[in-house]
Amino acid sequence: MEGYRVLEIKKSVFENNDREADRLRAELKKDRTFLLNLMSSPGSGKTTTLKATIAALKDEFRIGVMEADIDSDVDAAAIEKTGAKVIQLHTGGMCHLDAGMTKQGLEGLGVDDVDFAILENVGNLVCPAEFDTGSVKNAMILSVPEGDDKPLKYPLMFSICDVLLINKIDVLPYFDFDLEACKKHVLRLNPNIRIIPISARTGEGIDEWAAWLRTEIKNWIE
Amino acid sequence: MEGYRVLEIKKSVFENNDREADRLRAELKKDRTFLLNLMSSPGSGKTTTLKATIAALKDEFRIGVMEADIDSDVDAAAIEKTGAKVIQLHTGGMCHLDAGMTKQGLEGLGVDDVDFAILENVGNLVCPAEFDTGSVKNAMILSVPEGDDKPLKYPLMFSICDVLLINKIDVLPYFDFDLEACKKHVLRLNPNIRIIPISARTGEGIDEWAAWLRTEIKNWIE
Repeated sequence: MEGYRVLEIKKSVFENNDREADRLRAELKKDRTFLLNLMSSPGSGKTTTLKATIAALKDEFRIGVMEADIDSDVDAAAIEKTGAKVIQLHTGGMCHLDAGMTKQGLEGLGVDDVDFAILENVGNLVCPAEFDTGSVKNAMILSVPEGDDKPLKYPLMFSICDVLLINKIDVLPYFDFDLEACKKHVLRLNPNIRIIPISARTGEGIDEWAAWLRTEIKNWIE
Repeated sequence: MEGYRVLEIKKSVFENNDREADRLRAELKKDRTFLLNLMSSPGSGKTTTLKATIAALKDEFRIGVMEADIDSDVDAAAIEKTGAKVIQLHTGGMCHLDAGMTKQGLEGLGVDDVDFAILENVGNLVCPAEFDTGSVKNAMILSVPEGDDKPLKYPLMFSICDVLLINKIDVLPYFDFDLEACKKHVLRLNPNIRIIPISARTGEGIDEWAAWLRTEIKNWIE
């Protein structure tokens, strides 16, 4: 039997998502829980990156993961093996999570014993960018095989993120991906974004990413 | 100056999308225009595959392409260079196209001189699967770097497609992608789907894909 719970998320009843998101952030501050909203396309390596992130920080923080998906449990099963607390959220076909839905997820997960909560959002570069989940920080992953033109095609997503992980840099030699051109596109949309090239598979760049998270989490919970 | 037009698509006013889709298909039949709805994640190689498809079939059919995107023109500019007729559709933030929106696109493109119309849908594995566009056939691309578990995570998309192109097979040696396992997952969801492994970059598999299209287009327009 699986050790993780599956929660069927209900559509939010709140009309003003931005207000609900601010409320949720205030609660998280009071609870001393840092919430990261992690977004990307399907297949960019969110789950593998999460596993590397958990391995890097699990001795310093109590970590809890919410795996949002249309209706599968693939990711929760993978994360459970890391030993982190995990819950699977089913969105019932919805392509994003808003603050009300995230709140349901946090209640399902339970944050009394969690310093660092991570929401793995639905794999999608469009809808999740449009809804503030109540997270403290937004991160996104763009993987090398997806192409360096994605900032031009999904500008909102790149605009609302605090950090961009460019993943799968171990396969750069096999793809026409111009890392410098990509960074330039992104910084034009969002001059304050932190860009960290990583390979979740080889571990390259994970130290820098973990260091960024460590600082942000401590600033929030201390 | 660009030679392609940009059309801002309006939200559909029709309540019953399935009925509108059937009506649109009937019109396409009368007009002798075959419409292919091409779907995938961002970065799976839709545009590169389209370019290879146009090169393979442009001497046999008059081809017209609708490039749907949230708000960029990157893809229309790329397709224009192939010499095919092309129009850029902006969805104004919407993550999919329904039949009413596709009809607007076809009117903007003009199909009197088009045998084979292609809708490059918004890059997304969730929303586009939920709306019948009125297309004659649905195709999707899954690329090797996205992972062989995607059918488990986005079952609806794999269920509604007539053909699945598994793209970027030239990089199979660099990824943990089990082609046979992937095919098995897909066929369990959709026993009638045709699966064609391709590399849009090297041209591998494009002949088989073009042959499938040739048969389907001829069946429809003749």
